Amino acid sequence: VRVAVLGAGSWGTTVASLVCRTTGDVVIWARRPEVAEEITAQRSNDTYLPGLRLPRALKATADIEQAVSGVDVVIVGVPSQGFREALTHAAPLIRPWVPVVSLTKGFESETLRRMSQLIEELVPGHPAGALTGPNLAHEIMTGQAAAAVIAMGDDHVAIALQRLFQSGLFRVYTNDDVVGSEVGGALKNVVAIATGMAEGLEAGDNTRAMIITRGLAELTRLGVAMGGRAETFAGLAGMGDLVATCMSPFSRNRHVGEELGRGRKLDEILGEMKMVAEGVKTSSLVLDLARRYHVDLPICESIHSVVEGRSTPVDAYRGLLRRTPGHESQSD
Amino acid sequence: VRVAVLGAGSWGTTVASLVCRTTGDVVIWARRPEVAEEITAQRSNDTYLPGLRLPRALKATADIEQAVSGVDVVIVGVPSQGFREALTHAAPLIRPWVPVVSLTKGFESETLRRMSQLIEELVPGHPAGALTGPNLAHEIMTGQAAAAVIAMGDDHVAIALQRLFQSGLFRVYTNDDVVGSEVGGALKNVVAIATGMAEGLEAGDNTRAMIITRGLAELTRLGVAMGGRAETFAGLAGMGDLVATCMSPFSRNRHVGEELGRGRKLDEILGEMKMVAEGVKTSSLVLDLARRYHVDLPICESIHSVVEGRSTPVDAYRGLLRRTPGHESQSD
Repeated sequence: VRVAVLGAGSWGTTVASLVCRTTGDVVIWARRPEVAEEITAQRSNDTYLPGLRLPRALKATADIEQAVSGVDVVIVGVPSQGFREALTHAAPLIRPWVPVVSLTKGFESETLRRMSQLIEELVPGHPAGALTGPNLAHEIMTGQAAAAVIAMGDDHVAIALQRLFQSGLFRVYTNDDVVGSEVGGALKNVVAIATGMAEGLEAGDNTRAMIITRGLAELTRLGVAMGGRAETFAGLAGMGDLVATCMSPFSRNRHVGEELGRGRKLDEILGEMKMVAEGVKTSSLVLDLARRYHVDLPICESIHSVVEGRSTPVDAYRGLLRRTPGHESQSD
Repeated sequence: VRVAVLGAGSWGTTVASLVCRTTGDVVIWARRPEVAEEITAQRSNDTYLPGLRLPRALKATADIEQAVSGVDVVIVGVPSQGFREALTHAAPLIRPWVPVVSLTKGFESETLRRMSQLIEELVPGHPAGALTGPNLAHEIMTGQAAAAVIAMGDDHVAIALQRLFQSGLFRVYTNDDVVGSEVGGALKNVVAIATGMAEGLEAGDNTRAMIITRGLAELTRLGVAMGGRAETFAGLAGMGDLVATCMSPFSRNRHVGEELGRGRKLDEILGEMKMVAEGVKTSSLVLDLARRYHVDLPICESIHSVVEGRSTPVDAYRGLLRRTPGHESQSD
């Protein structure tokens, strides 16, 4: 099996390295030639995975035609706002029947589409899906146990891909709820900003657990309205991913929240980061989705107003606590 | 409104202190006279809440008749294995119609009954319920924001009690799924031992998130088989409590797991603790429940075999990872 991974960020490179264990033939497409060169020649990717050694079999190129032509599986790990462009270039090069799997957690700004919807639009007729779950790149690269979900409508393809992705302590479950799996992965980044913000304000573990739980309830309401299943949000792609992101000191979105909570400005925080914090963009898109699907999302609204600079973290936090709680499953 | 709290442990004392804010008339029953004396005379409970100041209005007694006679609400916070005895003494003293609320997360060993079932058995005809959720006593005493659930079959009583418990940054939701709320609170202690054990073995955040998520899936399967609703397990009494317990350095059950993971013996660990780690007892009872309700609980089984000394944490951990993952919502 030959595999192409589009995108040489930390997660794209990690998944490419994982897949190298089950098939020796993996090539990464990097937008920047110097990154492709570094991966192939030095077996490292110091911008995104500093200090880690990549597998010998892993190749990289900045030429998308060379990367995609003739492969049996295409994996796309470029950020949500560059996803369409990269896949548009790759699409004519992809052979018939080849499944296309997204690693990206977010929505396209203009269309509010999920990444697998972009796959269906740009590579119609191909099995489209997403690999998602509580996966911190650095831990997986260093061999820690982890679990992920391969979300695909077609069970046969999902089971074949499960075998491709799974090895060692990296366990892969299948889930045919593609909508729920993708929405869970995208929206958890907004809740991660919220818990980070609570931490920046020096809140305790109770408070963080409350935000995580009420945040997940929000995501589930929206996700179910969009066509996902509630149980998916209680699984690895929802709760699992959310918990890992909120616990990990490595999460970019949590980091953004923490710095906002300490009173710093968004531009300043983002200016210091090498990687994209998808949650910042998603916090605005999620409110468009909430309006479209008529769902009330108080936590996401508060985060958005802080991100936009319209309120301070302390105000946002107080506002949330002012709401009167009612029955747990119906209210905020 | 006059309120009695049975049990002067850390959580009983904390809830009594919280209720003092909304009603001035709260008395704690402490089994040991010296604890009652300390609470009343020195406004402290240094065994269970070291270094914290209790409200001036809070009274305590070791005389159960004096504590319970004439009160309007009875709250029971004694450990699960002493619950029946304490409530048996109190029962004849409780006035008609008075609601009885459990704070205790566990099952009675011999009968496998939930605490609110013991209330229904021993004080029949009284509204019975439970206060549960992600509530670390120390954080609530120091005024951190937190949320809890008052679980009662009767909505009117639940709303009245919501007003009694709620104040400041302590928010209380109602939930009429008493079974789910109690089962969630009891079983999360077993998963807390599991994540603690992973931490003792130096696993990463991915691994812990995976155990929390798959652990919650186990609890949900059992809880639903017992008559609870799946959504309750995704809420404060299930996921919320589990996440807080697994994140907090103060959790006793997580602490037990961590020390087991480091290779220490259970007796030794428990011998050093002042308070009851309910999860140790629950890890055995939960398997009786699993047999009764025909549910497979691989994580709970592994924890139990380590607790019993039949396997090492490393073996248990490897065993878990050997299981073949299938569709996320159906398998282990």
